[in-house]
Amino acid sequence: MTGTLYGLGVGPGDPELITLKARRILRAAPVIAYPAPETGDSLARAIVAEHLPGGQREIAIRIPMLVERFPAGEVYDAAAAEIGAELGQGRDVAAICEGDPFFYGSFMYLFARLVDDFPVEVVPGVSSLMACAGILGAPLATRNDVLAVVPAPLASTELAARVAAADAVAIVKVGRHFERVRGVLEELGLAGEARYVEHATMATQRILPLDAVSADAVPYFSMILIHKRGAAWA
Amino acid sequence: MTGTLYGLGVGPGDPELITLKARRILRAAPVIAYPAPETGDSLARAIVAEHLPGGQREIAIRIPMLVERFPAGEVYDAAAAEIGAELGQGRDVAAICEGDPFFYGSFMYLFARLVDDFPVEVVPGVSSLMACAGILGAPLATRNDVLAVVPAPLASTELAARVAAADAVAIVKVGRHFERVRGVLEELGLAGEARYVEHATMATQRILPLDAVSADAVPYFSMILIHKRGAAWA
Repeated sequence: MTGTLYGLGVGPGDPELITLKARRILRAAPVIAYPAPETGDSLARAIVAEHLPGGQREIAIRIPMLVERFPAGEVYDAAAAEIGAELGQGRDVAAICEGDPFFYGSFMYLFARLVDDFPVEVVPGVSSLMACAGILGAPLATRNDVLAVVPAPLASTELAARVAAADAVAIVKVGRHFERVRGVLEELGLAGEARYVEHATMATQRILPLDAVSADAVPYFSMILIHKRGAAWA
Repeated sequence: MTGTLYGLGVGPGDPELITLKARRILRAAPVIAYPAPETGDSLARAIVAEHLPGGQREIAIRIPMLVERFPAGEVYDAAAAEIGAELGQGRDVAAICEGDPFFYGSFMYLFARLVDDFPVEVVPGVSSLMACAGILGAPLATRNDVLAVVPAPLASTELAARVAAADAVAIVKVGRHFERVRGVLEELGLAGEARYVEHATMATQRILPLDAVSADAVPYFSMILIHKRGAAWA
């Protein structure tokens, strides 16, 4: 009997935005795993800390944050081997994922390495995509809107084309690309109606108009939402 | 003191996919409201039925399902008036929303009518978008994918252009548009890798390849997911 690998979506940051299912599995698993920086605390673990029963084995997957080394294949190889050893001995492993595991999540790197050998169940979570729309008090998409989710690292010309083609847009992974993204949105005439959110639902949450954002202080967990019909969505 | 209107995302169907926050607010609200068919039971209410404490006032918003009458402005006018009367008397109202309130949700019709007069808080929920990806066991979007969410009611030429332009696609609101959508995907050469899910996370959940779907029996709560890089997402 092998254990099951759970990809547990634990929501965007507010510990109360975990689902009953994720909390149940989180508490029952003898082993938990989570992404963490090279040194210091894991945000994913912090989200669920208040729900942990204590006594679980913890596997911190420490990801180098240096851009040129990402996605750090050897780190995931080692983590998958460690998790696989637990699964092979019949112990379930709950991999804690910020937001949703399959929405641009690093869980895919574990999933790809383990799905052929072990049972895997993904428990969907509340995504930052929906959390940001709720915080901003405006629908993400309505009626027959086409919604495009566009990663900020794309080249500016491609970014512009993708934004131009949709009715509603979420630009994700903004981080150090903010200044360039702002320039693209200004050229498209969309900067004024774009709304920026960082650390959605966390204590450090901030909502700003684009011209009030300091480009050198934009975290990875930030998003820009645009709805071209503005307040005319209803 | 007026009450607060809560837009409560309760997830895609599995009652265990409600968040702790949504359950807390659901239980504390003296009044709950939910969409329902013209006759019969409400799916939204069924999702949360096991969490209801009893004794709450319930407002069923009965929406005519005849396509030509949608979105039934007069129904939402009446519901907003009834909900507004409760809020005006200081009672909170929890509007129960399948999935997430601001992801193509009918909550926007209540929100638009009440947000200028009353405090409104949106509690994000697990969306069917993420739930379907989890069920299918394949990431929705990874790395720098552009993800497009495309409503099936769009004209075929527009649908084709939107699908062609994205790396990963979710076609929502499939229902009676299934046969036409399947034709569009066949012309694009994408029908083979498209995956169809109906009633995600519910007891009636089904996953089918497109050629096994009976076009005349496709429910509104169905989705088609396509990832153009197939299994090469990792």
